[in-house]
Amino acid sequence: MRFKNTASLGITNYGKRGMNLEDDINLSNKFYLNQNKAVIYKKPTPITIVKVNYPNREHAVIKEAYFKTPSTTDYNGIYKGKYIDFEAKETKLTSFPLTNIHEHQINHLRKIEEHGGIGFLIVRFVKFNKTFLLESNKLFSFLDTTKRKSIPLAYFEKQGHLIKDKYQPRVDYLQVIDKLYKGDLL
Amino acid sequence: MRFKNTASLGITNYGKRGMNLEDDINLSNKFYLNQNKAVIYKKPTPITIVKVNYPNREHAVIKEAYFKTPSTTDYNGIYKGKYIDFEAKETKLTSFPLTNIHEHQINHLRKIEEHGGIGFLIVRFVKFNKTFLLESNKLFSFLDTTKRKSIPLAYFEKQGHLIKDKYQPRVDYLQVIDKLYKGDLL
Repeated sequence: MRFKNTASLGITNYGKRGMNLEDDINLSNKFYLNQNKAVIYKKPTPITIVKVNYPNREHAVIKEAYFKTPSTTDYNGIYKGKYIDFEAKETKLTSFPLTNIHEHQINHLRKIEEHGGIGFLIVRFVKFNKTFLLESNKLFSFLDTTKRKSIPLAYFEKQGHLIKDKYQPRVDYLQVIDKLYKGDLL
Repeated sequence: MRFKNTASLGITNYGKRGMNLEDDINLSNKFYLNQNKAVIYKKPTPITIVKVNYPNREHAVIKEAYFKTPSTTDYNGIYKGKYIDFEAKETKLTSFPLTNIHEHQINHLRKIEEHGGIGFLIVRFVKFNKTFLLESNKLFSFLDTTKRKSIPLAYFEKQGHLIKDKYQPRVDYLQVIDKLYKGDLL
């Protein structure tokens, strides 16, 4: 459940070992922003608000709300003039279950590609401590050519790009984008 | 208060007269999406979740949460290969109070421009039933040359672009973008 993640709670565990992928990416995006390299944010978790109390003018308290299924991916922004859009997921298994991505998120990534944006997945295999960037067209060709319900690690090893662990930024996915889109970027 | 808006509640009032700007823009974005013209969404309202109940596995209920100040503008996406980013506000006054935009939203728009994106404001003067698109550089030049705390309607009339009311899409702001960025778009 998304909510268990400390980042969604507004708590940042700097320097803690074994941080999850979402925390790592949020810190990386903060680093990119501070370095004025890119402007990429995680979207807030979509919720439906049902009841709000106003104990006083300044402080509204949400007393009843529900999680909504997101229509888009979690992250988007701009890098060197290009629109960037991606979803990030961890798995403890040895292959990446496609149930981890909603169908409308995949459709969203298809639209992003169509409109000239850069779309991808970042997937971390926790067991192997390996994080990959998989371009959305590689995701689509997997989906369009097989009926398997999960993407094996081997596919990421072959078609994806390993993102090496660093101190800062922790998940330097823009390094991969630089390599892939060299001539296309500002 | 953002929450009073029916769009945030997941309720869409199609065809209702006197809809607010947010509803109008959400419908326009849905229209653009269906026409496969652009992929632009409103970001969910950022909140800090404090307490969640799980009456059963499927249904989490948020029981305590608070509104957070947004770090970015409300809307972003992609149009003809370009990154689009804007904030939309209504005013009942005859000038647009700058207190309606947070300082970090202005800084965000400055960064968007720096990184090669298209940033702007959409402001509706309810009293005159006029909706304008003001490019972010016109906003910055106002902020950088005067100490006034609100932008008069006359400035929008002169430096902005009137968005004519239509049936579909209600607020056709991409028509203005087409005119402004003609050669630059895909």
